[in-house]
Amino acid sequence: MRISELSRRSGVPVATIKYYLRENLLPRGEAVSATQSDYTEDHLKRLRLVRALVEVAEVPLGRIRAVLAAVDDPGLELHTLLGIAQYAVTPQFEAPADDPLWQRAERRTDELLAELGWKVDAASPARGGLVRAVATLDRLGTPPAPEMLCGYAEAAHRAAEWDISCIDPGAARADTVQEVVVTSALMGQALTALRLLAQEDESARRFG
Amino acid sequence: MRISELSRRSGVPVATIKYYLRENLLPRGEAVSATQSDYTEDHLKRLRLVRALVEVAEVPLGRIRAVLAAVDDPGLELHTLLGIAQYAVTPQFEAPADDPLWQRAERRTDELLAELGWKVDAASPARGGLVRAVATLDRLGTPPAPEMLCGYAEAAHRAAEWDISCIDPGAARADTVQEVVVTSALMGQALTALRLLAQEDESARRFG
Repeated sequence: MRISELSRRSGVPVATIKYYLRENLLPRGEAVSATQSDYTEDHLKRLRLVRALVEVAEVPLGRIRAVLAAVDDPGLELHTLLGIAQYAVTPQFEAPADDPLWQRAERRTDELLAELGWKVDAASPARGGLVRAVATLDRLGTPPAPEMLCGYAEAAHRAAEWDISCIDPGAARADTVQEVVVTSALMGQALTALRLLAQEDESARRFG
Repeated sequence: MRISELSRRSGVPVATIKYYLRENLLPRGEAVSATQSDYTEDHLKRLRLVRALVEVAEVPLGRIRAVLAAVDDPGLELHTLLGIAQYAVTPQFEAPADDPLWQRAERRTDELLAELGWKVDAASPARGGLVRAVATLDRLGTPPAPEMLCGYAEAAHRAAEWDISCIDPGAARADTVQEVVVTSALMGQALTALRLLAQEDESARRFG
């Protein structure tokens, strides 16, 4: 198909498609003349993924490239591949130097993960995100109770079991990674929205 | 205390404090001379809240003002007050005109909420956030299974029960709203991080 049809079918403006082509987020089409290229269904699929990552998951361009490289690498083990994809789309937080609140939050986080028995890498950017949230709550004078963190962890694990149960280890790895990245970002947004709706429901039941 | 001490104790630069004063996010101190004002513990507390909203919850300035106005209004019912605070800190999504995928996602969301029996307002911005996530998943060819959305809703409700159980209806309303806004935003970040850590754990158990 021509770039105009690619734009129509994906809903992505032609100028944006050309930007993705320049940034190597979308492979070039096959040249059919000096000024025209032909695009395939694979281009359309990739374009929809890039658009979801940019517009929905709001992943910076540099990290999108890392996801696309993992998607295109058939040699990685599934667990490794899932880790690369997840780490690439997760914001990184630097530990501030000599911050006693951060250090205390790190200890609390590691104690929680040990108590839960979860198999996670210490370099996980999500671990940094959890430390940051706990440290900020501590600084604001409202440190979360350990049983509340445990309750949240149980709720999170139920959602994660759904996420991982959707993965077919026999499917094409490229398709799997695309789906995991998209579903993880969007179901994360769904979980955030559902928690707010559930707060309103719970508040109505208790105080309404 | 002087502005320099307010800066030292809050960790917020003097220039940023002056910006918050100009934007009416922080009340002026008591003038003690033509160029100096005196600030109280209440200023310090308010400054820490504004900083948390700006830097942690990443709430736009206009919506921070709405939260602060609710915090300062002693006449609101607790459930109403919690709703104002939550709606103010939640991003709003406009329904696109004549988008059949959006309309289908709205129907699915309303069916889910009816099935769950949750008491939530149709104008809730979190409902829009959920519709947006479901519509985007649908557009990308991976609509979430109804049982997955239900499982996520149950997980979200467990987290929300913790959130609401922390509220003391007898406490000063201003303190309650401050704590709810901060805890909701930061425990939301904690839940997001915990879900990613749980995904890694679940992936290790199944595929590692």
